[in-house]
Amino acid sequence: MSTSGSNKPCVSVLGLGAMGGVLARTLLQAGYGVTVWNRSPERATALLQEGASLAREASEAINASNLIIICMIDKAASQNVLSNLDPMLDMSGKTIVNMSTGTVDDVQRIARRVSQHNGLYVDAGIMCYPKDIGGQHTTILYSGNSDAYHAHESTLKVLAGNPKFLGADPTACTPTYLALYAFYFGAFAAWLEGAVLASCAGVSVQDFKALSPIMSDMLVDGINTAADRIAASDFGGEQASVDVHVAGQEVVLDALQRANAPHASTDAYLSYCRLAQTAGMGELDIASLFKAMHP
Amino acid sequence: MSTSGSNKPCVSVLGLGAMGGVLARTLLQAGYGVTVWNRSPERATALLQEGASLAREASEAINASNLIIICMIDKAASQNVLSNLDPMLDMSGKTIVNMSTGTVDDVQRIARRVSQHNGLYVDAGIMCYPKDIGGQHTTILYSGNSDAYHAHESTLKVLAGNPKFLGADPTACTPTYLALYAFYFGAFAAWLEGAVLASCAGVSVQDFKALSPIMSDMLVDGINTAADRIAASDFGGEQASVDVHVAGQEVVLDALQRANAPHASTDAYLSYCRLAQTAGMGELDIASLFKAMHP
Repeated sequence: MSTSGSNKPCVSVLGLGAMGGVLARTLLQAGYGVTVWNRSPERATALLQEGASLAREASEAINASNLIIICMIDKAASQNVLSNLDPMLDMSGKTIVNMSTGTVDDVQRIARRVSQHNGLYVDAGIMCYPKDIGGQHTTILYSGNSDAYHAHESTLKVLAGNPKFLGADPTACTPTYLALYAFYFGAFAAWLEGAVLASCAGVSVQDFKALSPIMSDMLVDGINTAADRIAASDFGGEQASVDVHVAGQEVVLDALQRANAPHASTDAYLSYCRLAQTAGMGELDIASLFKAMHP
Repeated sequence: MSTSGSNKPCVSVLGLGAMGGVLARTLLQAGYGVTVWNRSPERATALLQEGASLAREASEAINASNLIIICMIDKAASQNVLSNLDPMLDMSGKTIVNMSTGTVDDVQRIARRVSQHNGLYVDAGIMCYPKDIGGQHTTILYSGNSDAYHAHESTLKVLAGNPKFLGADPTACTPTYLALYAFYFGAFAAWLEGAVLASCAGVSVQDFKALSPIMSDMLVDGINTAADRIAASDFGGEQASVDVHVAGQEVVLDALQRANAPHASTDAYLSYCRLAQTAGMGELDIASLFKAMHP
């Protein structure tokens, strides 16, 4: 193709949704030969004009490259693609990097399947939106075959400049990936809740945005302090006790209720505080919530 | 007292809880004369040894300085103190800065009361823990009498180097203060939820802390992007639709449930996504949740 003269390796991308399309485009723009496959091939049209090759079957895309990236709506969908392959398809020397969201069970099934085809498996969790792909500070988490990961690391760094390899167990990155997204989206919902409350009082979302760094800076510090306290089992309440936090946050809840604004996120926080109070930790530091929440 | 030779003004601090005590100590250490009052005077013992003067009545503390800081468990408690003052007490030329948490109604009542005593009123919202008082980047929000605020700004900057004055209406800072805390503690609960999930999978809280900046950086970007989209009513779903977010976060919820971990924060986020889906916004950007959540 357009890059046949390049000495950069060829990469195949299976799945051309919002994320998969950007992965393929970013590799193309970096000079890689890219073969793409999607269940509905019309999603490939723009990429073909930009120099990608179209595979009509998933197996054709797998045959075309030694590095195969799968990015579908979830790991069940990618598992489905692998299940439909010819059982005799040989993936010797090939690395499958699966960037789809899924459970630990999904990852185990897919890793086993790739291994049955003699392929090498690396699981991945993309920690960004499509617009951030290619960024120097963008992170993708990886785990699985370490040699395979390191052999392709420079290519994978084209997609995310700040990768984190979490170990040889292919399922290693899944819980961390899901836990980080529990944090991110819970925090995003909390910001929305605050922005709605501010808006109800006549504070524009842009004014609230301008003040939000006060809290995101405080959050970074609060997380570090809480993690250190949890690791050291140091729950002295000299900064502010759980009881003091509850008294303050009930005023926040009251304001949300008076404004007729939704308060599910504040409720979630207060419910964790109540767990701690019920467990007799009302006089301890807020980091003690971790203990109260842990199953 | 120990600083009688200083030309720094005297400050009175009413309320010596974890926060009030640190406010008084920080002013003392900066060379201010400090008069303190607390309902139970034994909380003042350490401060007296460090050079503070004890007032036996709230009115004595108010008479001692032109800048009076009130920091009690909530604004109801500070209102109670003001209600018990001699109605003839003259606060002419004095500024009351109330740093206690409270509702807009509380602020209005206290501001009225101060004005009946001929005092000047400034409301305040402390955006930190006691340990951060005195920090260059620490923020306290203020609103109320602008001349009074600016007259004492240099003293107030000793407590928080990055103050924000939000306008002459004394109630102006309250909704912003409460909305920022809705954000902070909802986000903190979400981090705990993630940390518990990670811990259930054998990832230590310190390892989770080490990876958390990936998400706090992404949150800063996500907030800015969402605020800009909300302000511009630009909800195109090209990055990822609400429907795609729900598909991903259901995997997170599944992992929390399988780990027997609490999931109130993820539930809160998903409930806001469902509001958007029910309102027909499933194909829009995640920032459309703001519209769906707004009363």
